[in-house]
Formats: sequence, C-alpha cells, structure tokens
Amino acid sequence: MSIAESGMQSPTAHLFNPLFAQPEGSPIRELFPYLSRPGMLSLAGGYPSPSLFDAEGLQHAAQAALQQDAAASLQYGASEGQLPLRDALAALCATRGVQCTPADMLVTTGSQQAFDLLVKVLVAPGDPVLVEVPAYPATLQTLKLAQARIIAVPTDAQGLDTDALEALLSQWPHERRPKLLYTVPNFSNPGGTLLPAARREALVDLAHRHGFAIVEDDPYGELRFDQGCEPSLYATGQVRCGAAANPVVYLSSLSKTVAPALRIGWMLADAQLLRRCTIAKQTADLCTSPLAQLIAAHYLRSGRYAPRLAQACAEYAARMDALCSGLQSALGDQIRFVRPRGGMFVWAEWLPPQGRAGDALARALFTAAVEQGVLYVPGKAFFPADAAPGSGLCMRLSYAAPTVPQITEAVARLGRAWGQALS
Amino acid sequence: MSIAESGMQSPTAHLFNPLFAQPEGSPIRELFPYLSRPGMLSLAGGYPSPSLFDAEGLQHAAQAALQQDAAASLQYGASEGQLPLRDALAALCATRGVQCTPADMLVTTGSQQAFDLLVKVLVAPGDPVLVEVPAYPATLQTLKLAQARIIAVPTDAQGLDTDALEALLSQWPHERRPKLLYTVPNFSNPGGTLLPAARREALVDLAHRHGFAIVEDDPYGELRFDQGCEPSLYATGQVRCGAAANPVVYLSSLSKTVAPALRIGWMLADAQLLRRCTIAKQTADLCTSPLAQLIAAHYLRSGRYAPRLAQACAEYAARMDALCSGLQSALGDQIRFVRPRGGMFVWAEWLPPQGRAGDALARALFTAAVEQGVLYVPGKAFFPADAAPGSGLCMRLSYAAPTVPQITEAVARLGRAWGQALS
Repeated sequence: MSIAESGMQSPTAHLFNPLFAQPEGSPIRELFPYLSRPGMLSLAGGYPSPSLFDAEGLQHAAQAALQQDAAASLQYGASEGQLPLRDALAALCATRGVQCTPADMLVTTGSQQAFDLLVKVLVAPGDPVLVEVPAYPATLQTLKLAQARIIAVPTDAQGLDTDALEALLSQWPHERRPKLLYTVPNFSNPGGTLLPAARREALVDLAHRHGFAIVEDDPYGELRFDQGCEPSLYATGQVRCGAAANPVVYLSSLSKTVAPALRIGWMLADAQLLRRCTIAKQTADLCTSPLAQLIAAHYLRSGRYAPRLAQACAEYAARMDALCSGLQSALGDQIRFVRPRGGMFVWAEWLPPQGRAGDALARALFTAAVEQGVLYVPGKAFFPADAAPGSGLCMRLSYAAPTVPQITEAVARLGRAWGQALS
Repeated sequence: MSIAESGMQSPTAHLFNPLFAQPEGSPIRELFPYLSRPGMLSLAGGYPSPSLFDAEGLQHAAQAALQQDAAASLQYGASEGQLPLRDALAALCATRGVQCTPADMLVTTGSQQAFDLLVKVLVAPGDPVLVEVPAYPATLQTLKLAQARIIAVPTDAQGLDTDALEALLSQWPHERRPKLLYTVPNFSNPGGTLLPAARREALVDLAHRHGFAIVEDDPYGELRFDQGCEPSLYATGQVRCGAAANPVVYLSSLSKTVAPALRIGWMLADAQLLRRCTIAKQTADLCTSPLAQLIAAHYLRSGRYAPRLAQACAEYAARMDALCSGLQSALGDQIRFVRPRGGMFVWAEWLPPQGRAGDALARALFTAAVEQGVLYVPGKAFFPADAAPGSGLCMRLSYAAPTVPQITEAVARLGRAWGQALS
C-alpha cells in the first residue's frame, strides 16, 4: 500500500532518508476515500462517538483555564507537563488501581507520542521488540521506522498468550534479548480481549526474568461493560517486583474517554527512563499544549468525568450488543468472534467452506462489502508484513461511532457481501 | 551538562538506546534553578511577554470553536491539519509575501515538531547538515540525536555568511554532500540578525547548485521594529528556481505572535516531502490538537491578530531600546553587539582587556552575574560541542519578557558583574 506519487520529480527527492524513500501510510487511512461514498456505513474507524463528547463541560473548562490561569494556559510549559493536570491524572489512575505520583508521570501529546518517545529512548536499529498480534497498526509503523526487529507474540480469546511467549523466550538467542513488549491488556485494539489476572502475573514475571520492559497501553480500560476488571500490569509489577524494580511502563490517554482533540496522553515509568523520555520530548514538541492540559485539568476536577464515562459505557455496551447479536443471528457459524467486555472493537474471523482460498476470498469480500455499502478494516492491517498468514479473513469491526440502527443495517450488508463473495 | 542520576539502578537502565545512555538536557533549561532565586532578573528566557497575550480574544475563539465546530474541535483530525486553520495560515503567509495554498502546508505541534519531522524524513546517521552558528540549541540537539554530522556555517552582523558557505561547499568532498541547511533569516535566535536580500539570493542559488534543501525557520519575522523587511527565502526560491524546483522549506509558528501554549506551527514544502512528513507525523502524535487548531483559526479570523501584533512590536521595540541603550551607556567599548531590527534577542560579546583568558573569565562572569541577580544564556549553548572556540564570552540577552525598568536594572547588575569578574 505504498502511496502513489505524482510523476513530477520533487526538488528534495534525492535527499530522502532511505527509510522514507517509499513510505507506507496508515493502512486504516487508506480506507478514507471509501468513507465519502454516499450511504456508506463504517465499522472501520477507531474514533469515539461524537455524541458522547461533553462539549458544554469542555467549554466551561476552557473558560476556567483562560480566566483563572491565563498566563500558564498561554505560555510555554515544562516538558514534564502541567502540575494541576498531573495531579488530576494521578487521581484518575488511583481510581483504576494504579498508584502513582505526579513525579512518576510525563504528559504526552496523545499516548501515540508516549510510545514514540519510548521507542526513541530504548530501541536502536535491529533491536528485537515483542508485540502482541494482531496489533494496533501505528505501533507496528513506529517500530518499523525505528528499524526494530518485530517479534510477533500470538494472542487468543484471552489476549496475549503467555505460554507461547514463554516458549518463544526460552528459545531466543541470549546475545540479543528483546528490549520491550507492547500489549493492550484491557479490551485490546483490535482483539477486544481482556487479559486474565493469572496471565498478567505470568507476563510480569517473564519480563522480570528476561529483563525486558513491558509497555502497557491502556486507553480503553475504563470503557467496560460489566464488573470485569483486572489489576493493571503496572500494579502487578509493583506488587511482584517491588516499585523500584517494576518493569512496566504504563501509557494512557484521554482520547477515548474525554476527547481525542485534546491530544492528552501520559506515561508512568521509572525516574531514569522518564527523564530520558522528557529530554526526547524537548526535541519532539517542547511540551504538550499547556492550554489543552489546563482545559483537561479543569474538566477532570469538574465532576463531569465520571457520569459522562458511565453514559459512554452504557452506550457502547448497547452498540456492542447490537453488533454481536446481529452477527450471531445473521451469520451464525460462518463467523467466529469473542464478545468483548469493554472497549470499542470486535475482532472477527470468517469461516469459509472448505477449499476456498483465503487471500482471494478476502479481496472478493472487501470489494463486495464496499459495493454493499459497508466498511471494515481487513485483518492484515494488524500484522507485521511477514506474520500475517490467513489474516485476510479476519476483520476489525468498531461499534463505537455508528448508532444501533446503523449497526443493524451494516451487519445485514456484511451478510450480503459474504454471500456475494462466496458465490 | 549531563543530567545527574540518582545512585539507584533503574529497572530499564540496561535497555537504553546508546544515544540516550548519558543524555544532555537543554542547556537553557539548566538555568531554571537560578530563576527561582529571590529578586533574580532574567534576560535568559526565550519566552514572549505574557502581558501581550490576548487571553480575552482567545477565550472568544475557544467559545466559537466549541460552539460552532464542536464535532471537529473534539474529534481526531487529519494529520495534515484542519482546513480552516490552513486557510487562515495561508492568508497570513500572503501578508508576509509567502504565496502558498493549504495543499502546500502541514500543521505541526509547534515548529519544533516540523524540524523534527524534516530531520526524520531527510537525515540518516552520518549525513552532513549545515547549520548557521550561533544556532538555536534545540536544533543542534535534534540533529545530534539524529546522528547528523553538524557542519557549522559562520555568521556575522548580517546573518549567515554566504561567501564563507560558498568557500566551504567548494571544498566539500563530492561523495557525501550536505542534505540541508538550517537558518533563521529574520531576527535570528540567538544572533538577532536580518539577512540582506542579496545574501538570500546567493543562499538559494547555492542550495540549487549543490542540491541541498534550505530550512527557513521564521518564527520572528513579523516582530519587526521598522519597515525593514526582506523577501522570504521561500519566495526567493520560487522566483529564482521556479515553484516546482524550490529548494526552500518554510517553517513558522504562532508561538511568538499569538501564544506558545497553542503549540501551532506549520511547514510549507514540495508535495513529496510534505507527504513523507505527514506520514512521519502519524507515528509522532497522529495530529496536532484539533481544538487548538480551531481556536487558532477562529482567532486569526477575528481581526484581533494585526492590532495585537502591532502592540507587541511597539512594546518589544521599547524594551530592545532600553537594553541596547543601557548596554551602550553603561559598558561602552567593553561590549560589542548589533542593535536588532526585530525579534526578541541581542547577541553580545564581551571585550576583555588583553591577556585575560576567555573560558575562565566566562565562568567568573556567570558566577558574578548570578550573585548580582541577573541571568543570561552563556554563548556556548548555541554552538556544536566542537565549534565553540571563545564562544564563552558571548551571551544571548532576551528583552521580550522583562519590563523596561527591569531591563534597566538588569543592565546595571550586568555591569557590576563584569567589574567583579575582571577584578
């Protein structure tokens, strides 16, 4: 999926770093042109529902920031982040069972930047990095541009397969051990899985024993549909290894629970790693918008976060139910998926009649789906190039943005597309 | 100036990329602890004056963005930037004689990010990069982390010395030509110089002939104190090379003219380079805060920008005059500097009596200045490590943040510190 170039020679083309000679854009963004087709229903995006944004509450917060903290809201700020926001985020972490202080925290421009900074500080070209697959595509892209050697760790219906990881590590050559492991333990993107507590303990123990860092990316943990809640890997690491030897770096974001446009993420890490990420941030963007930070701080203190989050959980649960029940009743044993207990995604795999070739059928299905007016993200977007056998018959479906009636209609279209592809 | 580490071993210390094993923070940030001393007057910072922030106008803009464009202001946005902002910034560019369309533009999280993205896309380890010196420290740090080979280009009272550059290029081995050249042609940081039109033409011609890109960083161009205005390098490149072969990449920012906390910068570049920087931005932070972008767009359309800018120019001119007249009358021929015609900085060099060693005297002066209660940035912060002979007796003085009476007092303290250092 390399980006098409115009025929004209760029005056700078002879200067490109070889890594960017033929760059690949995000495979999800490649779907954007289809989105504008009339009547298209999309289960493709990973965007939160705009109907859940608290525009009024954020307007009050913006007013408060600019009236009460005008100087701090408009000036450069410390690269570490604004203290009122770090205080509020530490309090938010505590409600998740993640104990931390503002000193353990770096505010980042979305958690995307947090991962980018970590990779800058930790990964040199050729370093092995463990990634659960299927994985968030921007994670794969960041590692690819850092010239990391990506090692795929398999997952199942419960998330990262720690037995498979242990087997993999036991055979790994000792001279170049993996630097870090990336996982989304809570309602993963795209898998939608929730990692059980026993696997969390096993994973932390493996990191401790083999000397790699765990990057726990947790944007979705609060979007849960039942009381199902497991201790964070960060807290698990504190308990099992002691706070001073915790191998877990915790990342989170306000993008899925307040608004993506704030671009507020954060990282919890040990002091030396945090200091290095802060120095890397100085050259990346000096600091995250202090205005956005103070708007977020005022919003978190306003008391509107918890009720709005409860509303989002209820709405997403209803949409998830519409999608899963619809798939079940319309497609039955032609499709396999795990009903998520939170988050924004269903990862589904088509089960074709025996003898049907995977990749050709996958292409036919996508074409038919576009014809029928429904969009999803094909599975191969979530795998490193060399680790995607058969992934084409998987797909990521997001129920976050469409309404229940739209989801019902989208499922019907998916069913017709599947019939068309098989015929 | 390596950052002090606690004695305790970090659980991730064995994982650091060698580039970050002993990282150096910003030399300007190293001065922060002195700032909090009671009564300290600072000519060190590069911060705009908070008294010039239009908090009221930005509050109206925030309200308008959240009321009129709530969905776009709160959701993820295109990595290229919000169209209303790109329209407004293209109009702003036109007032500077920079002709462009929104399609030529990438919105970035401050112009710091724009340079970081350019370096990612263009510079591989070992690539030579030309930098005018003295230079903005974060530029040097970005290039160092990219493992660029920094080639210092000398400057004089008129900015980058194009004759010296031509001589340097004529001797440069052909097999590894410089990739790009970084310059601040308008009221440079730290030099305060304005590059004459003839040098702009010569520089563009050299880039065209030797095949390197010019990064024209222009955060200060509108902060001018007289009618002195030279055509931008970008426009010069369009004229002399044709728009399709323009070797100039233009960077600018709203940090110095509206508010740093918006973190809004932008880049103009040819289509293929722009596309690659956009892809690099996807892994850096996905997009610049759409909320900050739409606040900026509403503000630029409000009609408040031009009068506020005029007010800033008048205020900074008065402060510059207080600083330069004060230095002249208090220190006379013991100090040499060029009176800037715009921007925020005076670059000054002490002229010690013959036989006084530069580096020891520089250290004594800084210690005495701190004792006297005045802060500046020592010159060596603005040079690559291997290109700073004698830079220690230079200093950057910023007149942007302190008031005129504070500047007058700061100059008196500087004079006493100089006497103390010499005695």
